[in-house]
Amino acid sequence: MRALITGGAGFIGSNLADALVARGDEVVIYDNFSTGQRRFLENLDGDPKATIIEGDILDDDALVRALAGCHQVVHLAANADVRHGLERPRVDLEQNTIGTFTVLSAMRQAGVDRILFSSTGSVYGEPEVFPTPEDCPFPRQTSLYGASKLAGEGLIQAFCEGYGFAGVICRFVSILGERYTHGHLFDFYRSLMADPTTLHVLGNGKQTKSYLYVGDCVRAMLLLIDGAEPGTCRAFNLGTDETTDVDESVRRISSHMGIEPVVSYAGDERGWVGDSPLIHLDCSSLRSRGWSPALTIEESVARTLDWFDENRWVFDERGH
Amino acid sequence: MRALITGGAGFIGSNLADALVARGDEVVIYDNFSTGQRRFLENLDGDPKATIIEGDILDDDALVRALAGCHQVVHLAANADVRHGLERPRVDLEQNTIGTFTVLSAMRQAGVDRILFSSTGSVYGEPEVFPTPEDCPFPRQTSLYGASKLAGEGLIQAFCEGYGFAGVICRFVSILGERYTHGHLFDFYRSLMADPTTLHVLGNGKQTKSYLYVGDCVRAMLLLIDGAEPGTCRAFNLGTDETTDVDESVRRISSHMGIEPVVSYAGDERGWVGDSPLIHLDCSSLRSRGWSPALTIEESVARTLDWFDENRWVFDERGH
Repeated sequence: MRALITGGAGFIGSNLADALVARGDEVVIYDNFSTGQRRFLENLDGDPKATIIEGDILDDDALVRALAGCHQVVHLAANADVRHGLERPRVDLEQNTIGTFTVLSAMRQAGVDRILFSSTGSVYGEPEVFPTPEDCPFPRQTSLYGASKLAGEGLIQAFCEGYGFAGVICRFVSILGERYTHGHLFDFYRSLMADPTTLHVLGNGKQTKSYLYVGDCVRAMLLLIDGAEPGTCRAFNLGTDETTDVDESVRRISSHMGIEPVVSYAGDERGWVGDSPLIHLDCSSLRSRGWSPALTIEESVARTLDWFDENRWVFDERGH
Repeated sequence: MRALITGGAGFIGSNLADALVARGDEVVIYDNFSTGQRRFLENLDGDPKATIIEGDILDDDALVRALAGCHQVVHLAANADVRHGLERPRVDLEQNTIGTFTVLSAMRQAGVDRILFSSTGSVYGEPEVFPTPEDCPFPRQTSLYGASKLAGEGLIQAFCEGYGFAGVICRFVSILGERYTHGHLFDFYRSLMADPTTLHVLGNGKQTKSYLYVGDCVRAMLLLIDGAEPGTCRAFNLGTDETTDVDESVRRISSHMGIEPVVSYAGDERGWVGDSPLIHLDCSSLRSRGWSPALTIEESVARTLDWFDENRWVFDERGH
């Protein structure tokens, strides 16, 4: 099997690429390296089963060429910056919605009809049911990011229905672990490296969310794409059954670093407009397929912080 | 009040424009006349309260200029050709999703923050609950048209949450009445004018759908946009509590025309891939605001057929 991974040099993509190659599959890493990192691909250096292509998902022709010989696509490339969507509203539309359409269209041209898509718990907006199941009441979008991912889901579902594609939609909680480079733990660690005496928290510290270890996430993705059936498109929540709040994250980082910062709060229950004060997904549908996470949130946070300690370069080189 | 109506020269848009002007509002008809008709605007000829602008919803600058002095937007312009979406998949993306984004973006630039959006019962895909309420289980898309309208809904919701827009989403059933120029009644009537002895039906004739008279639709839209509140975006189903099937439509047309065609069927329960064999929306949310339809489906069909008799030019000039 040969899989093209858009965003394959990113956090989740590079971990998935390692796992696919480890089980004997071929991978094509397709990434524009805007946030992806060459160093995340070091394990694959010189491996004949891995091909690395620098390209943009909005470049239809380059995608079609890269898809030659592939059997499936894992579409992870996206604008993942939820917080600043309102400052540049067109970015989510282009990178996430039009980008997903372009990937699907290139797949049709290349004769590839199997796709796993990284969606998000943000498509539930501010749900009324917790933990939130995949078939919760039709949600209302609260962020441009969520709206753009919902649009991507709809496109994939329509391609499955209309062209017989096999599709899987993964609605992720926040993912943690090795190569994590985006989110509040990253921001907190960087801030505390620069000044261990104080920490400023967006929101009131009570925002409560679920997290999943990247290794558990990758195992789930492999299970789901292997089980995808032509003409169908199922959506699955990917998360743990636990949640944790921002204050708990601050305690864990402070303890890990051996510091006691003074914490100040912006004060609202949302970190920013469109932020969801509670994300807790019902993952029983995925669990019923035999999957369960190996790590707790506490263990995932510890792995992430250990990895930061050993890879401080990600704080220097990010945004290169 | 001054409203810009995208698609204002179309079936619903021109009826809405007449109603707005009749109650003393100003209207800006914004239409690219790809399917809109100059003759639908004859009532407004020379009326100082009506401005007609030929422009495309993908033309950001032209939209911003047209929005000068407007208080609200009724965004109806769209690709409404559900059936041929799979032949040209990019059309729905461009006309419906990117088009809606461009309208919203132009509104921000022009300082207009009130919008009513024409969505569709097709966003429910093939629902499991009938009649289908607005908060039915999170649906799966079955057509590119539905997916593109769902994407438009999400964008509007995110603009309401993020920028304080006042939004209303109308999920229409099929609309009938004066100036109806797209759908199975139109196709059947045209076919039977050319050959009254035979009629070919896509599907098995049992597809069952709900219909609403355009006058009732326009009254509901006025009620809903007048009640829209800043920072909120509610979705409403617009339909009758009745349904009818394709065979019944054939009987009504045949009786109206005084003919007895031999009917042949393509045979499937869906008229085309992505067609929904049953559309029946729960409209109690709209009814709870004091609205109810004045016409039955039978009366709406009769009005439509009478209008065809008096306006056969729509069959000649369509696609001009």
